[in-house]
Amino acid sequence: MTATTTPIDNGVDVEFLRGAREALTAEPAGAKFQWRVTNTWVHGTHSQSTVQGFFGLGEEQDASRDFRFDADHPELFSAENNGATPVEMLLASLASCLTGGIAAVAQNREVQLHSVRCSIEGDMDVRGILGVDPDVRNGFSGIKVTYEIDADASAEDIEALVAQSQKRSAVYDILTNPTNVSVEVA
Amino acid sequence: MTATTTPIDNGVDVEFLRGAREALTAEPAGAKFQWRVTNTWVHGTHSQSTVQGFFGLGEEQDASRDFRFDADHPELFSAENNGATPVEMLLASLASCLTGGIAAVAQNREVQLHSVRCSIEGDMDVRGILGVDPDVRNGFSGIKVTYEIDADASAEDIEALVAQSQKRSAVYDILTNPTNVSVEVA
Repeated sequence: MTATTTPIDNGVDVEFLRGAREALTAEPAGAKFQWRVTNTWVHGTHSQSTVQGFFGLGEEQDASRDFRFDADHPELFSAENNGATPVEMLLASLASCLTGGIAAVAQNREVQLHSVRCSIEGDMDVRGILGVDPDVRNGFSGIKVTYEIDADASAEDIEALVAQSQKRSAVYDILTNPTNVSVEVA
Repeated sequence: MTATTTPIDNGVDVEFLRGAREALTAEPAGAKFQWRVTNTWVHGTHSQSTVQGFFGLGEEQDASRDFRFDADHPELFSAENNGATPVEMLLASLASCLTGGIAAVAQNREVQLHSVRCSIEGDMDVRGILGVDPDVRNGFSGIKVTYEIDADASAEDIEALVAQSQKRSAVYDILTNPTNVSVEVA
């Protein structure tokens, strides 16, 4: 399927993914995952989120992980700009989900990637979050993602990689379809 | 409205926010914002997102900002765990949006916050993203956010702070309602 003589290597272990697909087809209970974050208010609109373990394959996993995300509002909003805004973090989440998916799909289709980059834009009328006009939604009116990809594949095959990543993306699904969110005070 | 003698200070400039609301009621064009992220593939499922300037109040803003987010899959997925997963980043986005909102609403209602912390859980059946079963969605089956808040307010007033933050949250809106996302290759 390819003219190169060196093995295709995008750094994704597709043998593992194929094995996981088979194993979870046989044992669906292992497919129930729970991802978790804790968030602590610092000051003003500044808070810090911490990502550690998760639940999957029937047990607690990877408790040694420790990733931190600061979020804040920019100085334009008279805030202290100690981190990205939550909506920028959401765009980063979508972009990284699609990009990781492109690498995995490319590996599965034996397409060598050289570079993958996207820019992502979210349009928002801030009259929604400020409560100026109840007919203006709080969230984005739309999100546009534009990829530039250098790979050993035709333009058509590159388009197909992106489309397949989009089809299997968790974050794309969450943004484009309604997700149930409950918010409680303990 | 409060029994304390010191001014309520959660670090949020509500005078600014009230002024912005008035100004954007008079001049709605200034309310059109665009938030942007670029994302670059590193290796495997590892990518890095960069947050810099944005557009708002009719012009380019804050080009000196520079926040980076690494995303990856964990070792359990035979990946290199160079960052949080995209879906954990999404949970951090939601948590930080709600927490920043709680601080702003509390300031507006003259409620002194002492501590605000939440845990957030997203349940997912990974048979969706693995393509095992087309009836299983890729995204979360549900998200649960639980706050613990210490503030100079009744339990009822604390519940109302959280409810108002939820009502005005951009990320809560984006997750619970469908958002249009276009994905293209340049």
